[in-house]
Amino acid sequence: MPKNAFYAQSGGVTAVINATAAGVIQTARAHRDKIGTIYAGRNGIIGALTEDLIDTSQESDEDIAALRHTPSGAFGSCRYRLKGLEENKAQYDRLIEVFRAHDIGYFFYNGGGDSADTAHKVSQLGDMLGYPIICVGIPKTVDNDLPITDNCPGFGSVAKYVAVSIREAAFDVASMALTSTKVFIMEVMGRHAGWIAAAGGLAAEKEGDPPQVILFPEVPFDEAAFLARVRRYVDEQSYCAIVVSEGVRNTEGKFLSEAGTKDAFGHVQLGGVAPMIANLVKDKLGYKYHWAVADYLQRAARHIASKTDVEQAYALGKAAVELAIEGRNAVMPVIVRKSESPYSWEIGSANLAEVANVEKKMPREFISEDGFSITEACRRYLSPLIQGEDYPPYVNGLPDYVTLKNAAVPKKLKTTFEL
Amino acid sequence: MPKNAFYAQSGGVTAVINATAAGVIQTARAHRDKIGTIYAGRNGIIGALTEDLIDTSQESDEDIAALRHTPSGAFGSCRYRLKGLEENKAQYDRLIEVFRAHDIGYFFYNGGGDSADTAHKVSQLGDMLGYPIICVGIPKTVDNDLPITDNCPGFGSVAKYVAVSIREAAFDVASMALTSTKVFIMEVMGRHAGWIAAAGGLAAEKEGDPPQVILFPEVPFDEAAFLARVRRYVDEQSYCAIVVSEGVRNTEGKFLSEAGTKDAFGHVQLGGVAPMIANLVKDKLGYKYHWAVADYLQRAARHIASKTDVEQAYALGKAAVELAIEGRNAVMPVIVRKSESPYSWEIGSANLAEVANVEKKMPREFISEDGFSITEACRRYLSPLIQGEDYPPYVNGLPDYVTLKNAAVPKKLKTTFEL
Repeated sequence: MPKNAFYAQSGGVTAVINATAAGVIQTARAHRDKIGTIYAGRNGIIGALTEDLIDTSQESDEDIAALRHTPSGAFGSCRYRLKGLEENKAQYDRLIEVFRAHDIGYFFYNGGGDSADTAHKVSQLGDMLGYPIICVGIPKTVDNDLPITDNCPGFGSVAKYVAVSIREAAFDVASMALTSTKVFIMEVMGRHAGWIAAAGGLAAEKEGDPPQVILFPEVPFDEAAFLARVRRYVDEQSYCAIVVSEGVRNTEGKFLSEAGTKDAFGHVQLGGVAPMIANLVKDKLGYKYHWAVADYLQRAARHIASKTDVEQAYALGKAAVELAIEGRNAVMPVIVRKSESPYSWEIGSANLAEVANVEKKMPREFISEDGFSITEACRRYLSPLIQGEDYPPYVNGLPDYVTLKNAAVPKKLKTTFEL
Repeated sequence: MPKNAFYAQSGGVTAVINATAAGVIQTARAHRDKIGTIYAGRNGIIGALTEDLIDTSQESDEDIAALRHTPSGAFGSCRYRLKGLEENKAQYDRLIEVFRAHDIGYFFYNGGGDSADTAHKVSQLGDMLGYPIICVGIPKTVDNDLPITDNCPGFGSVAKYVAVSIREAAFDVASMALTSTKVFIMEVMGRHAGWIAAAGGLAAEKEGDPPQVILFPEVPFDEAAFLARVRRYVDEQSYCAIVVSEGVRNTEGKFLSEAGTKDAFGHVQLGGVAPMIANLVKDKLGYKYHWAVADYLQRAARHIASKTDVEQAYALGKAAVELAIEGRNAVMPVIVRKSESPYSWEIGSANLAEVANVEKKMPREFISEDGFSITEACRRYLSPLIQGEDYPPYVNGLPDYVTLKNAAVPKKLKTTFEL
């Protein structure tokens, strides 16, 4: 009898993490001689710790195929990080208890930097605690901050959403500018790095195209330079479109969005750097503004996902299972950029030890000298990632996303576990 | 020689007002024996008053066809309302001066309620001031508040964007709810009516589907009832997705969004009811939240436009020219709903006098008794309007929207006009 597998989704979900799940499950189903049942963790690793497993074998082939076009985490995700083995051995003992009870010999963990770290720890269960397991991490994060891999699944689709959205909104404000709104500000994700904000720059294909200003977390906010630039574009082009990262900081390194706002109920308001920038523009330059905060819309926007991103997400799930079947423990499939123009890529692999706890920063040479736009090098890197459309099917005017049955596997243990 | 025509876009632009422009210009080009050149007003009616006309005959057939898939107002729009004839006769004298100089015998005005009013006034130039002109209004407004017509072009696409977006974001928050965000709030447009917020309800196809809460401008905000409902859904389903109209008011009739927020720069913050609702949820219920403000993204989102909306927008532009050729002054083509299920429609016409200054409110029977969702009657009305997708072409991963040459017509007048 082949060993069963455990698959879990971790951290913030994306438009394509379920495409990876489809890649994992479909590939495992094609190798029933090597891998038994795929159990998914309900809400990520928490599902393993609490023996709350989902029996994916009860899902139809059709529904598993539909995961490819369904955003979010179909089995539930979580923000929960395993401690180190020495700090909390009980967690690892519990994993072994659950894995042994359900005859699990493969562990697939689909997430970002923290998850690569968790997967790396689990990969040591064999050597450290004598429970043999093949552990494969699978990259996922809109933050695009994992090392080694060319990019992270989920990022390309956010990038496309952001570039499309700022182009559309810029067309709008351009046509209203004479008598109404002159400045439009869109806030995007990226607390620690400007990858997503940079993607907005793809909408600007030639000098002066919108967005005319990008505010990156990597560049301390310079109010005077910013206002001068906005004024210049309003003077020259009658309007200015701005992409601002939620992670933009003042010169003291403090998030602008945490600088302390109170709302009408008297509560401190967190988040929302776009309205702050908008008010600054209004106050100092007198221009009418509009602002948007895309928030979850950007990372859930499967309707405008990048085809490249979907294909890579799926291919990584498939490759993870193939690596596991080859007996490769403690690895992660990665995307390897073979050529840039035309873009071609293949799947390679990296050691989890080299991925865990390493953050890929945006190179300074990807940001223009004045700090308000992206460079050609950045464009060459980013542009391939948003290529192609991969529309979901629609029913009744709405995307036909699947909700799985997510049937619970009967518990075999009498013990419970306190998180 | 046939008379020339003047076409202008007015008020807030939409994802499909350029589809109407394509319908006008392509149809006029097919009737060169009846209509000479189409001059577009640069920035709407202001272009007429300042003799700033655009010669659309210099645009290629290809570029005019591309207007059908390009959002925003290709010729510029404006927020500018003509006064009454008796209040400001100089405006009308100026229009006649410009129209006469450019041999304009047809006037097409593409806009919302204010624009229907302007068009109605211009239609009286013949009777009142002896300048014969055929004036046809063409409906457009995301607010969906024009009377007589089944719906207003632009609204169906916003409706689709809002329904798709809240569905996607709800999938996202549902998968994060155990350890992270439990409540997601999306703010949408609709200062005076809940049409757009109601469209979010289309995403909920059965009891309990998200969005579980909609906050309408028509329903005074009841904090206790709202919080109870959010708590109930978080208890029952682990999360709650909320659509809130920017126009939601407190029990004293004051916009929540104007209740006075100060930001980190100390400025009063306007707009942003979503963060207020979010903070209320956090403060009173303790749930982690995320919020989005769609703003212009929703009305510019040509990438996810409703095919029904695009077709109706185009058909109205075409019909406007046909009405003009028939010599019908002071009318507006409208959409007539012939049947609801399956939806079928045709183009009819209305008198501008009956359209001007009449606002179509959302019927109370479209909102559930408890005030937090839409009724089946509302669903039957709205659902047809979001049917079908009409994707723009993409180049390099981005929608290929057209920017016209917008060549100025040489001025013939020595006079100028102060707006």
